Amino acid sequence: MNLRASVFIATSLDRFIARTDGKLDWLDAANATVPEGEDCGYHAFFESIDFLIMGRKTYEQVLSFGKWPYGTKPVIVLSRNKIAIPEQLAQTVSDSSESPKDLCERLSKVGAKRLYIDGGITIQRFLAEGMINDLTITVIPVILGSGIPLFGNLKKDITLKHLATKTYDFGFVQLSYEVVKD
Amino acid sequence: MNLRASVFIATSLDRFIARTDGKLDWLDAANATVPEGEDCGYHAFFESIDFLIMGRKTYEQVLSFGKWPYGTKPVIVLSRNKIAIPEQLAQTVSDSSESPKDLCERLSKVGAKRLYIDGGITIQRFLAEGMINDLTITVIPVILGSGIPLFGNLKKDITLKHLATKTYDFGFVQLSYEVVKD
Repeated sequence: MNLRASVFIATSLDRFIARTDGKLDWLDAANATVPEGEDCGYHAFFESIDFLIMGRKTYEQVLSFGKWPYGTKPVIVLSRNKIAIPEQLAQTVSDSSESPKDLCERLSKVGAKRLYIDGGITIQRFLAEGMINDLTITVIPVILGSGIPLFGNLKKDITLKHLATKTYDFGFVQLSYEVVKD
Repeated sequence: MNLRASVFIATSLDRFIARTDGKLDWLDAANATVPEGEDCGYHAFFESIDFLIMGRKTYEQVLSFGKWPYGTKPVIVLSRNKIAIPEQLAQTVSDSSESPKDLCERLSKVGAKRLYIDGGITIQRFLAEGMINDLTITVIPVILGSGIPLFGNLKKDITLKHLATKTYDFGFVQLSYEVVKD
């Protein structure tokens, strides 16, 4: 399958992606220290992907922010049940109850080369099913103590190859890894 | 108090310091890829500390390895109850049921400048009580999915200052942070 599934996410040093209630105040506070125009590679990454895959919770949180941040990029929301999609997003957002593997195979057949996998549960599902190819983790210089974890249980270890690490003057450290397939 | 308490530890990408049963096979496997003579700064760090503080579980695990790896460095084992100390270690190992704060104050008074805080529970206790000054975390390129976590619950966020990040050809990434005191 000529398709890569990629994670691109910020975490606290203790690997939380949000507080237990989903709040991102700590990330917003950290982002406020980032110089204007610096996006830690997000735009370039976003340009490189064909589809954004997220879970229902992440989707609903993004909707709650008001402005839809993904432009015309096709977004697939993973959900066991059908979800409500506002009319203005009907052209780009769809839902799916497929497994990570089935979804990747279907999107590969329509020519997708790279997927952006987002949201805690969704990332954990893709990792657990061996469907993630690379991870870019931006470490925010804070320890939260509790929250929604990036990683979850696995049936077996995932071996990684370190690709690159970038440090930023404002204290962020961005680690990139490729998953070593068995 | 003119004393620093430091963490120097290796973790998986998902921030485990050992498997749930304490096993370090994943770390041993990773260390087997490290070139002879490379210690990722451990010796220099160890030379810089006056006391090594660890919990009873870590102490017992180290004892079980057979050869005591800490030479003549004074080691204090934190334990609610008295522990058995083999005669050959009686000169360097002692136990204590002091709180992190009381221990730091006592050691500061006898001239200690830097402590090495080791073991999951002990590190978490020191962090939770605001008694850690800096952390050096060597990230091993593996995701374990479960294990003994480096970090635990906190009453409030710990803000960090990124000091340095070092990458190694064999895939380890070493992040160093200073705790920003309120």
